[in-house]
Amino acid sequence: MYAARLDRVRSAMAAQAVDVLMVSVGADLPYLIGYQAMPLPRLTMLVVPRDGEATLVIPRLEVARVVERPECFSILGWEETQDPIAIVAELCGRPSTAAIGDQTWARHLVDLMGFLPATQWRRSVELVGPLRARKDAAEIAALQTAAAAADRVARQLQGGDIALIGRTESQVSEDLSRRLLAEGHSHVNFAIVAAGENAASPHHHASERVIRAGEVVLCDFGGSLSVVDGEPGYCSDMTRMIYTGQPPAEFCELYDVLFAAQATGVASATVGTSAQQVDRITRQVIADGGFGPKFIHRTGHGIGLFEHEDPYIVEGNEVLLEAGHAFSIEPGIYIEGRWGARLEDIVVATEDGPWALNSADHSLVIVEA
Amino acid sequence: MYAARLDRVRSAMAAQAVDVLMVSVGADLPYLIGYQAMPLPRLTMLVVPRDGEATLVIPRLEVARVVERPECFSILGWEETQDPIAIVAELCGRPSTAAIGDQTWARHLVDLMGFLPATQWRRSVELVGPLRARKDAAEIAALQTAAAAADRVARQLQGGDIALIGRTESQVSEDLSRRLLAEGHSHVNFAIVAAGENAASPHHHASERVIRAGEVVLCDFGGSLSVVDGEPGYCSDMTRMIYTGQPPAEFCELYDVLFAAQATGVASATVGTSAQQVDRITRQVIADGGFGPKFIHRTGHGIGLFEHEDPYIVEGNEVLLEAGHAFSIEPGIYIEGRWGARLEDIVVATEDGPWALNSADHSLVIVEA
Repeated sequence: MYAARLDRVRSAMAAQAVDVLMVSVGADLPYLIGYQAMPLPRLTMLVVPRDGEATLVIPRLEVARVVERPECFSILGWEETQDPIAIVAELCGRPSTAAIGDQTWARHLVDLMGFLPATQWRRSVELVGPLRARKDAAEIAALQTAAAAADRVARQLQGGDIALIGRTESQVSEDLSRRLLAEGHSHVNFAIVAAGENAASPHHHASERVIRAGEVVLCDFGGSLSVVDGEPGYCSDMTRMIYTGQPPAEFCELYDVLFAAQATGVASATVGTSAQQVDRITRQVIADGGFGPKFIHRTGHGIGLFEHEDPYIVEGNEVLLEAGHAFSIEPGIYIEGRWGARLEDIVVATEDGPWALNSADHSLVIVEA
Repeated sequence: MYAARLDRVRSAMAAQAVDVLMVSVGADLPYLIGYQAMPLPRLTMLVVPRDGEATLVIPRLEVARVVERPECFSILGWEETQDPIAIVAELCGRPSTAAIGDQTWARHLVDLMGFLPATQWRRSVELVGPLRARKDAAEIAALQTAAAAADRVARQLQGGDIALIGRTESQVSEDLSRRLLAEGHSHVNFAIVAAGENAASPHHHASERVIRAGEVVLCDFGGSLSVVDGEPGYCSDMTRMIYTGQPPAEFCELYDVLFAAQATGVASATVGTSAQQVDRITRQVIADGGFGPKFIHRTGHGIGLFEHEDPYIVEGNEVLLEAGHAFSIEPGIYIEGRWGARLEDIVVATEDGPWALNSADHSLVIVEA
């Protein structure tokens, strides 16, 4: 599998006239060779010449962490007193054009530019992004497993197993995190809990604010879950809305618009439709409902080994959806200082139509405990 | 405080002829303005012209997360359909020399180079690193609070409160993580548990291997802990060694050498001594004990808002220790396939001599449960 991915990335390098690809921290590395670099200053970098053997340059004391795949890459462990940038530059030769991993630390790129002053630099996403965006059957199965685990947590939330009233957002966030782990995630990426007026801030995380009766509670949570032990994990990400008591009619009207927009957005995500068209269709429902200016972010983002990746469901992205593209559909309506709501599923585009991986109740669920 | 830090960084820019500094994800941003960027593709970037006002360029939907400090910087929220790189480039003017945050994603630097083709690039660590390395009294107090919290977990481990025999390394790692949080950390960075032969791999994390009686267990753990709510957190990091039963004489001899090396290393870390000299002094004790080639990593790393930062205690680093420098002293001895040991404290260089923040028992502690 990894050998096939490296072959595909070399084909992309040939098509785009890139001589060498270098990837470090981030999701490109586990996608290409099944190993995740430690996010620390000591450099780990896979060097992939278009026409030569790939080499993983890694601190010697981390070599033992690597699952060797000699058919894909060789390992070069550097000692504490060596300069890993010089080693990487040597392996590169004198490339006219090099692509650098998107999340590689800029300090390493600045250092590499010192060794390779004549090289033109490109972003790895141009090569690896389209490959990573098209999930194969095993990747979709992994996303499905992660989504099902998140769904189980959502059902516990909707079923009243997670106490809300009288607890702080942070306490509920920790509870959600614990349950994401208990349901099989190896890592929690976030567990947003936003009550009342905090739900109007899309990236509010969780605070010491106490949740009261008669409030809206937005819960947006996800993590990563490895299906095969030792293989990198795929992400979950979902949002569900709770009301702690009977919701007022005004909020129900807002929620009905959101519900319709999200369902319409999912249904529109067919193979061959552009990403921006899905955004426009979703946005139109909210505009028609009278909340156009209150939907202040894009409709969604791709998801895979990383929580936000290609394809982005946003105005200006003309990419046509392909079978295997996986992304969130998550419109929101935010009334500053008062309340807000978002509803989110992970969706896979397939030849048989869009497939929402999350199935926990999409309605505004009332929890009175 | 943040205004004074920005003043100092502008002085460093003047001294090094840097026209503009741009920082994004990583610890430079919270150090300079008290705000941590989300590690996601949407760009957050503080632009600091040497002679102009600083601006935080941030996704509009994350603006609500920022504590405003108008005396330090203004906020420019970008909309989903805008190009934040173009906005940053515009704020930069046409700098001859620009410094970019060390951990900034390389994709953003590649994009910036497209807008600023004539600019020479430098790493932010050259400007901010020496400032961040010299901790002020409040920062040292924060490191001390974090170290004390980690110490409490170490004492629970040494006191037998954390069951070892019959549990997997992963279970013990989760237990340590839970206790780091319970003792006040807001985030766990790592909780390495390495039993028996796994202790010979310095960056082993934790596995499904069951801990048995009569084994060595290496525990290296740390997290970050915010002292003032909303202020960024400073890190803890410590290593202690357990034996599940009576240790054989051969291991005791190894441990005695390590213990002496670590204590000697701490004592050598006086103001005015070079970082590499501390490494050499520590290393010499291990060499004299007959284990020279088995100490396969540097002696330590700086610590602060980030777990690994300047000053590194390593051969080749001629930086002289200054009052306020904070770093780990963590020699190790690793016998491949058999066992290993490491002993680690966080140490602050002061005018009154080196001050080890960790005080939990440094001996090889026997836990038989």
